Amino acid sequence: MAEAEHPGGRVLSNGKARIDFQTDPSRYRHWQLKVDGDIATLVMDVDEKAGLFEGYELKLNSYDLGVDIELADAIERLRFEHPQVRAVVLRSGKQRVFCAGANIRMLAGATHAHKVNFCKFTNETRNGIEDFSQNSSVATICAINGTAAGGGYELALAADYIMLVDDGSAAVALPELPLLAVLPGTGGLTRVSDKRKVRRDHADVFCTTEEGVKGKRAVEWRLVDEVVPGSKFDETIVSRTREFAAKSKRDPAALGIKLTPLTRTFSADAVEYETVSVEFDRAARLATITLRGPATPPPSSADAMASLGAGFWPLKLARELDDAILNIRLNELDVAAIVFKSSGDPAGVLAYDRFLDANKDHWLAREIRDLWKRVLKRVDLTSRSLVALIEPGSCFAGTLAELVFASDRSYVLIGNREGDNRPPAGIVLSDANFGAYPMSNGLTRLGCRFLANPADVDAAKAERGAMLDAERAQQRGLVTFALDDIDWDDEVRVFLEERSSFSPDALTGMEANLRFAGPETMESKIFSRLTAWQNWIFQRPNAIGEEGALKRYGTGQKPVFDTKRV
Amino acid sequence: MAEAEHPGGRVLSNGKARIDFQTDPSRYRHWQLKVDGDIATLVMDVDEKAGLFEGYELKLNSYDLGVDIELADAIERLRFEHPQVRAVVLRSGKQRVFCAGANIRMLAGATHAHKVNFCKFTNETRNGIEDFSQNSSVATICAINGTAAGGGYELALAADYIMLVDDGSAAVALPELPLLAVLPGTGGLTRVSDKRKVRRDHADVFCTTEEGVKGKRAVEWRLVDEVVPGSKFDETIVSRTREFAAKSKRDPAALGIKLTPLTRTFSADAVEYETVSVEFDRAARLATITLRGPATPPPSSADAMASLGAGFWPLKLARELDDAILNIRLNELDVAAIVFKSSGDPAGVLAYDRFLDANKDHWLAREIRDLWKRVLKRVDLTSRSLVALIEPGSCFAGTLAELVFASDRSYVLIGNREGDNRPPAGIVLSDANFGAYPMSNGLTRLGCRFLANPADVDAAKAERGAMLDAERAQQRGLVTFALDDIDWDDEVRVFLEERSSFSPDALTGMEANLRFAGPETMESKIFSRLTAWQNWIFQRPNAIGEEGALKRYGTGQKPVFDTKRV
Repeated sequence: MAEAEHPGGRVLSNGKARIDFQTDPSRYRHWQLKVDGDIATLVMDVDEKAGLFEGYELKLNSYDLGVDIELADAIERLRFEHPQVRAVVLRSGKQRVFCAGANIRMLAGATHAHKVNFCKFTNETRNGIEDFSQNSSVATICAINGTAAGGGYELALAADYIMLVDDGSAAVALPELPLLAVLPGTGGLTRVSDKRKVRRDHADVFCTTEEGVKGKRAVEWRLVDEVVPGSKFDETIVSRTREFAAKSKRDPAALGIKLTPLTRTFSADAVEYETVSVEFDRAARLATITLRGPATPPPSSADAMASLGAGFWPLKLARELDDAILNIRLNELDVAAIVFKSSGDPAGVLAYDRFLDANKDHWLAREIRDLWKRVLKRVDLTSRSLVALIEPGSCFAGTLAELVFASDRSYVLIGNREGDNRPPAGIVLSDANFGAYPMSNGLTRLGCRFLANPADVDAAKAERGAMLDAERAQQRGLVTFALDDIDWDDEVRVFLEERSSFSPDALTGMEANLRFAGPETMESKIFSRLTAWQNWIFQRPNAIGEEGALKRYGTGQKPVFDTKRV
Repeated sequence: MAEAEHPGGRVLSNGKARIDFQTDPSRYRHWQLKVDGDIATLVMDVDEKAGLFEGYELKLNSYDLGVDIELADAIERLRFEHPQVRAVVLRSGKQRVFCAGANIRMLAGATHAHKVNFCKFTNETRNGIEDFSQNSSVATICAINGTAAGGGYELALAADYIMLVDDGSAAVALPELPLLAVLPGTGGLTRVSDKRKVRRDHADVFCTTEEGVKGKRAVEWRLVDEVVPGSKFDETIVSRTREFAAKSKRDPAALGIKLTPLTRTFSADAVEYETVSVEFDRAARLATITLRGPATPPPSSADAMASLGAGFWPLKLARELDDAILNIRLNELDVAAIVFKSSGDPAGVLAYDRFLDANKDHWLAREIRDLWKRVLKRVDLTSRSLVALIEPGSCFAGTLAELVFASDRSYVLIGNREGDNRPPAGIVLSDANFGAYPMSNGLTRLGCRFLANPADVDAAKAERGAMLDAERAQQRGLVTFALDDIDWDDEVRVFLEERSSFSPDALTGMEANLRFAGPETMESKIFSRLTAWQNWIFQRPNAIGEEGALKRYGTGQKPVFDTKRV
């Protein structure tokens, strides 16, 4: 049997053609998720034989994308299945090693695209851990029992509180620069400077010291919050965790729901979910994602919502959309543009928005809104041109309208198409468009869109609930172009053809700039300042050339560098 | 005679080995600087035969670094030689063409390092134009008489007010993406989104439309401020300029000083200025810049300062330091680290700081402070490791102490060296360290350094004027390491050797992150989000490969792209 290489640059260990983001705790190879009352423990115990791709071993709790997919899943489980949890301890299942970071052989053999996508996903997972703490009131404690190097320390940096055992050898380190000639690019540099607020010269010493920093200096330099003698490590973890858990606002009596597996069918040119369809037009390099509105009205109460569990329409749709986006990102690299369409009754969508607003104090409603926020951020950060096509019969209302505002361009059809008696297209806004889903730069999508004139946001807000037809939506600045039936097909086709004729890289760079007008936050800095520099370095011969540090690592040969500073 | 290739990738047209940043209006080939009372006009009229390098012609007012060096010089002349000017008009000397942007053949043949350095300098020039308007109260009006494409429109974007002739063909355009597969990377994308606040979907259309936008739409989309019929163009420029000039706070009676040529001597391993020495240790890949304190006390009055003109110590030092930094950046690519040293009497330096504070309402004192601000920003943005060595006899006081805080690391020697009876090393702070010289992110260097604890800034502030010896400076967090004479030589040597052993690219990326903790501004976004993405694209085969768009431009052959989106 011929082994097909994944676009990641290697053959997937499970023999499949695509990386799958769906998993569940019963299938974890690298993590244990233990829940004991209101305390959860996430134990990292990487199975070195269970790499996502063939060709490397995940020694010393080093990780690849497969390890991070499980971690991301575990956080989702904690959010939805264990809402009573008030504190989470992250620790290692190995002796004297916390985590050696991203696996170097995996990185050295990965394609550029996979390196970039791997870092993006791990960044999203770490941002998700911080979001979990901030917005779900769950304290996160990282207990470092040995060496936390590179991505291992970057993982720790995502926690609220970092404890380091003081045994004379345990240390935190960011050895990427001296060892591999790349950056601590999974948030490391940004979290050191902007979250831990390590003084810049200390950060300089730290990031150029292969062996890292340990003991008292690690606390003095703000790299960890506490060092604890080995003999007291376990008991201190328990007492700190109890202290933090006591401060959580989470309800210890909340009962979780089950995140049941997504129902998906993959075919050659489509993925069919229950509320989402993805169609690939490979010749045109397009993926069309159609989102379906709810088939039934919202339930009568929050309890009824909880009974529906993962079947509750907004939750199901968010999970399916997230999976669809990740599938395109990692497995469908030739897709130039994602086209968003929708079908359904806008009033039905709005009814769910109102339901979630009315139950905003219920943990599940809050978690669903937060999931939508993160999925929409994932859309913003997806390096494909994003296009919304708003056609008769569509339901871009409230939460779903955010996809229009997340798009690089949107087209709305004026009136009806010949022979089509579905309701004319339009947009309906809801409260959800004015604060529920901030982008990574802290602005709402409408706030970012109307940076020139905040009064345009107010004007749009005043029309919440009203169906804004094509011309009205254009007048309000909510869509790019409103087109007649006569022009629609040609204009859209010409635009999409043009898009796929452009340099994919230049589009990525342009979109990464134009999507994020206005302020930057620590989160957005990770994806702009840090990631963009890291991606640059990931193209430089000093890192990836035959004599570069990534290629030479572990060979006993020193890398040879082009000495020019650029 | 063998023609030596400059690190820029070509032979310099003037036959020299290094790019020189010193010029004056009598030598301009591409610009005319006309001053008429309180109005200045900068006419861009590029001599196509006078490219900086051999091998291309600067057609259609396209530019290379040489053109921008003249523009930067002209702005400095306006600041110092024409302080009565209250408004500046930027316009073209060519018929129906404003500026075609950066010359494509120049770019296509440039080394990666030169592309990056060229963009950085042009960015600094454009930021300088904005700074001139904001801080010197000089209105800048750009009058576009034809096509302003790419860097041509980016230049216009630096002005306060953009006028476009409405003649049916004149347009503004950012055709980089469709034409060349690169970004409008000299501030273009960021100024479109963050300064002009163009709606993101309009920006998307604009930046993917080769021919650009003209007429009424250009105003509606906020790309220009006004379109003016051709018959009224000249008179409207005059009336607008008058209106803006009337609002300036500049004194129309102010008398300028002459920016006399710098006195410099280049030798094989050194550049000697009057107040600055640069020494190259090429084996160690080091440049040591020694700044000399003032030889005389400050003058008795602002008028006396003006009489000294370019000989006034703080002005001379700033200009010489700026030239030294630019020389290293563009001509000495192998330098891994810049070591800052100083010699002189700290009290003398402080006296000048006090003098500038006392005369802060005098235009010349204000311009000198502003020049220092820009030179220090240039230091922050220099992609070399920056090290301050504070030794006996040094004068890192007030303004000069900013170089310590701009450095990635600083070392101070405790007490005296054997056989050296110069005063022990230390740092003295002045008011200038607490607001006069903001970084591009808007923070003072001490504010950025002490992000974790703003009280540390206050504590430092309380000690203004006091000589903080090595140990005290370290205690206050103002330096990285205080070392005894016994350890000094070895520690410093080992550190510098280590630095030059690391990957130059990884250092560039690390330093670009660690130097800028905290908020981002439009200016800092240009150098982080935009520049870092552009540099990435400048490494991608879709732009620079043999079949890439930059290489294929003008050949009649279409570029061939790797279609993978990354």
